[in-house]
Amino acid sequence: MKLARYSVNGTVEVGLVEEDRVVRLTGRLPQVGQDMLALISAWDGLRDAAEKLRGEKDFSLAEVELLAPIPRPGKIWGIGLNYADHAEESGLPIPEHQMWFVKASTAVAGPYQPIERPAVSQALDYEAELVAVIGRGGRHLSGARAAEAIFGYCVGNDVSVRDWQVRSGQYSIGKSFDTHAPFGPWIVTADEVDASALPIRSLVNGEVRQQSNTRHLIFDPVAQVEHLSQAMTLETGDILFTGTPGGVGAAMSPPKFLSPGDRVRVEIDGIGFIENEVMDEPGR
Amino acid sequence: MKLARYSVNGTVEVGLVEEDRVVRLTGRLPQVGQDMLALISAWDGLRDAAEKLRGEKDFSLAEVELLAPIPRPGKIWGIGLNYADHAEESGLPIPEHQMWFVKASTAVAGPYQPIERPAVSQALDYEAELVAVIGRGGRHLSGARAAEAIFGYCVGNDVSVRDWQVRSGQYSIGKSFDTHAPFGPWIVTADEVDASALPIRSLVNGEVRQQSNTRHLIFDPVAQVEHLSQAMTLETGDILFTGTPGGVGAAMSPPKFLSPGDRVRVEIDGIGFIENEVMDEPGR
Repeated sequence: MKLARYSVNGTVEVGLVEEDRVVRLTGRLPQVGQDMLALISAWDGLRDAAEKLRGEKDFSLAEVELLAPIPRPGKIWGIGLNYADHAEESGLPIPEHQMWFVKASTAVAGPYQPIERPAVSQALDYEAELVAVIGRGGRHLSGARAAEAIFGYCVGNDVSVRDWQVRSGQYSIGKSFDTHAPFGPWIVTADEVDASALPIRSLVNGEVRQQSNTRHLIFDPVAQVEHLSQAMTLETGDILFTGTPGGVGAAMSPPKFLSPGDRVRVEIDGIGFIENEVMDEPGR
Repeated sequence: MKLARYSVNGTVEVGLVEEDRVVRLTGRLPQVGQDMLALISAWDGLRDAAEKLRGEKDFSLAEVELLAPIPRPGKIWGIGLNYADHAEESGLPIPEHQMWFVKASTAVAGPYQPIERPAVSQALDYEAELVAVIGRGGRHLSGARAAEAIFGYCVGNDVSVRDWQVRSGQYSIGKSFDTHAPFGPWIVTADEVDASALPIRSLVNGEVRQQSNTRHLIFDPVAQVEHLSQAMTLETGDILFTGTPGGVGAAMSPPKFLSPGDRVRVEIDGIGFIENEVMDEPGR
């Protein structure tokens, strides 16, 4: 099922998306409020009831504004150089160990919200990514337990400020600018996704820039959960940006960075797409 | 004033610490519950009332268990190589740009809680640090506004798993193990701290390992707020680990890592101390 968080008639709700229909879950299923984390936590006990509602319609999809499924994840981790062609275009070897950085939770943006070119840099770039959403969480998850920890998947854009990303050697700050973690447009539950074979692409103003398939991931989402949970407890609503394929703007010759007015679209077949227009950071 | 979060008689409260006395603020000042973030947010309007309570006593300090002042900061940033002697002992140049990594919010531990040597590594190390707590927050803070954004200061230990920290080149995962961000024992409000001249030291089993003064910081806390807020919005309760001086275990020859039973103490004159015993990660 597709679980969305959306705004309609001035209120925020969570619900199901079925084709062009939205089915409200807020206030209809027991104890479901406006909070996606609570919905995920209670999902095992709600799934059957939700299943029975799939034919209903409260709104058409066009009537609602889709929001980031989780507005403030406890943790957002992103993995670097996780497709061979992206490592190659970056002039870097394929990592022996998983290479993780962080995106600040204040970087979250909605699936169709503008992304900002910051005042301090023009080296603004896109990275099409499959995003995994942690459900049950835990520590030292391996094999089936690691797989079961993934509640579902979204489409994400690991927006990156390249000069800030690389100049200290530590990527996280360049990945953490406000609005630079758009994801959505909803969470597709893991039972409906074969994460090992998803066509993924990005387009800038309609021009295909990245085109690959998640079968080319060096470390798949389950291996990522296994690795991270050796170090720390993963929790409900933590999200993982699982890596980007070749074709980023910084690797072009000359580099093609994003400019105000550009429309960046990331698509993953079977999940959906997000599309964000670039604007200059508002004056201060 | 010293603002603490503590457990007493099975409940969690926030309050003032005055010498060996604890003055409860929870339930006594208007709208102050158990939440330190709410207290910080409302502090400007509460300060005078709190000031009048400084002579009172609800508990002796020995009666309460001091907890991490903020259990789940929205963001924990740590700066690398921010004392010249630590850069030198690490064999690295003084950074031209501030070098930031992240500690996961799940890494928080109390000021006297055990820290875990993880199952996956024995390269466990300490880093004595002054911790700055963001109060008002904001974006593009500079000068006086950056200084005013800092609500107060704590003592912290930026516990580090050295092999995991360096092997991918990205430090954050090696800084994010559960229990590896102990801080406290309270927040001293910024008006009572001259952060530019604080003696700081760490001791392992009573042996002094690090001994320096915050006047040796390359980038001071205000410069840190200025830099980070160029990229992102800082928010109430975000915390900054402001750098560690020379003397870490990894730089000794041979390296002296922490072992179960070791007691690691970090002291900053004018703030207080934290002390954490090392234990092996509990069996799973």
